[in-house]
Amino acid sequence: MKLAVDGMGGDKAPQAIAEGVMQALEEFEDVEILLYGREEAMKPYLKEHPRLAVIHCEEVVEGDDDPARAVRRKKDSSMARMLEAVAEGTADACLSAGNTGALMAGGLFKVGRIEGIQRPALATTLPTLDGKGFLMLDLGANADAKPENLLQYAIMGDIYVKKVRGYSAPRVGLLNIGTEDKKGNELTKAAFDLLKEANMHFEGNVEARELLNSVADVVVTDGFTGNMVLKTIEGTAGALFSMLKDALTSSTKAKLGAALVKGDLKVLKEKMDYTEYGGAALFGLKAPVIKAHGSSNARAVHSAIKQARTMVEHNVCKTIQETITKG
Amino acid sequence: MKLAVDGMGGDKAPQAIAEGVMQALEEFEDVEILLYGREEAMKPYLKEHPRLAVIHCEEVVEGDDDPARAVRRKKDSSMARMLEAVAEGTADACLSAGNTGALMAGGLFKVGRIEGIQRPALATTLPTLDGKGFLMLDLGANADAKPENLLQYAIMGDIYVKKVRGYSAPRVGLLNIGTEDKKGNELTKAAFDLLKEANMHFEGNVEARELLNSVADVVVTDGFTGNMVLKTIEGTAGALFSMLKDALTSSTKAKLGAALVKGDLKVLKEKMDYTEYGGAALFGLKAPVIKAHGSSNARAVHSAIKQARTMVEHNVCKTIQETITKG
Repeated sequence: MKLAVDGMGGDKAPQAIAEGVMQALEEFEDVEILLYGREEAMKPYLKEHPRLAVIHCEEVVEGDDDPARAVRRKKDSSMARMLEAVAEGTADACLSAGNTGALMAGGLFKVGRIEGIQRPALATTLPTLDGKGFLMLDLGANADAKPENLLQYAIMGDIYVKKVRGYSAPRVGLLNIGTEDKKGNELTKAAFDLLKEANMHFEGNVEARELLNSVADVVVTDGFTGNMVLKTIEGTAGALFSMLKDALTSSTKAKLGAALVKGDLKVLKEKMDYTEYGGAALFGLKAPVIKAHGSSNARAVHSAIKQARTMVEHNVCKTIQETITKG
Repeated sequence: MKLAVDGMGGDKAPQAIAEGVMQALEEFEDVEILLYGREEAMKPYLKEHPRLAVIHCEEVVEGDDDPARAVRRKKDSSMARMLEAVAEGTADACLSAGNTGALMAGGLFKVGRIEGIQRPALATTLPTLDGKGFLMLDLGANADAKPENLLQYAIMGDIYVKKVRGYSAPRVGLLNIGTEDKKGNELTKAAFDLLKEANMHFEGNVEARELLNSVADVVVTDGFTGNMVLKTIEGTAGALFSMLKDALTSSTKAKLGAALVKGDLKVLKEKMDYTEYGGAALFGLKAPVIKAHGSSNARAVHSAIKQARTMVEHNVCKTIQETITKG
């Protein structure tokens, strides 16, 4: 299979991208990579490889470019060219660690929606205490959602977890402010009724407090709430780690103790580490479009490539299309 | 002033409530307390006190009672009688650690809304890394909100922080999925425009990721999102503390280190401790109705009584009324 990669997107581009690409080429023998970007900038971090093609393009979509217009305007950018490759069928999937909004808008515009899908959704796997993780969507592809959108998000998430993670009947949960059936705002109440009738293992409402305790395998929510919850988890974890660091360096005694627990704390931090979980995927497009975290290192880029490969291998987009068409 | 207290609400009632009441009576010489509940059950934890009146009532609103009907049906419950005391003017404010929904519905029904306030809001002070904390509302009094509701929440929060915390110009932020002016869903975009025109120090949009970093003194959001963010903070902090505990007991070396850092970790946990922050207050009612955390210990009950006292002392409800009337 052929995967198109944006060599210029993300805080650590092009080095982290190029190195992640080399790692992936080593590991996955069935993968060819089309790497888009400024050749001179990427070159120092690349080796010649029979399954690597470097395609020079001059422009770069920046983090602060207007998401709605960036890809249309910068036609010779690494992001636009990478999406173009997928649209033309030259590549089977693509990934970028660059401007999220531009990638979403560009993906919609160039790769296009699966017929019958009203809105695409941004999905990612988040860590849980037991190490299994769960898929959450939408994380912000659409700030507003209708109940029918949430149902489609659930269908797409269900297919992804079945295909990619091999679960036979993923537990699908609706993110809500209480677990009782009648809880919620107008949107979740209406979505609850749709999900109850859907052909999947619907667990009912799940609360944000329990998300890290593995209460569901797929968690569905509107993009505003999903983005909010994701950023609250990140912010709270970040704040606590920073307080922990302060606490452990506050006295000589604490420093001594900290030296002894250092290894165990590292394991803790790794459990919460996004780099092993791949990127976020834009579900509902005709081919996989993967968004790697903006601060992706080589390891995270490698994980995102692995995720793109798995989605292609398991025909996730085609299965979504078939399921939606069947109704 | 006279404060009415529900002696039977919360996981640790009646003991924690009774003990918290005794602590508050010791500390605040201007406070008289009317304590409602089963006399025999509360007695072992109470001492005779000239400013304490115990009013026996037979019924108890349970945690799983239907919120909409509990207070109406259980007319002789400690919660209903306490609200009645405020409605009649016998008490200046009231507080309960019991069923949140029942207290909100009962407060609305018995104490009543301030004229001009469309929807009451549940507000609480959350900790920040710098120890200052911020007020967030609505935490779930209303799952759905209109832009005008969010404006009123901001007005009420602004008054509270000015009056109770003594800030001259609290920074008011709108919780949103990005800091840029045009970001958000339909609700936040419309609310942004209203807040920009309002007579307060509006900081613009604030992100969930930054909440614990003291980016605003008052954070306004709809009840669905507020409840979600609050529970996500609680859930993430809880999960991390539990992982930390596991990490620090995973080996003999770790246990040794843990013994040395124990004191510093306790300080960290106290920083995140709700018991010092009082309860949540239902803003927009004619008198202060305080909801203490369901798992409140005596210290948390004491803090909630202190908060009720401060709200009465500073005429928060009257100032809200005057501000809303002036338009």
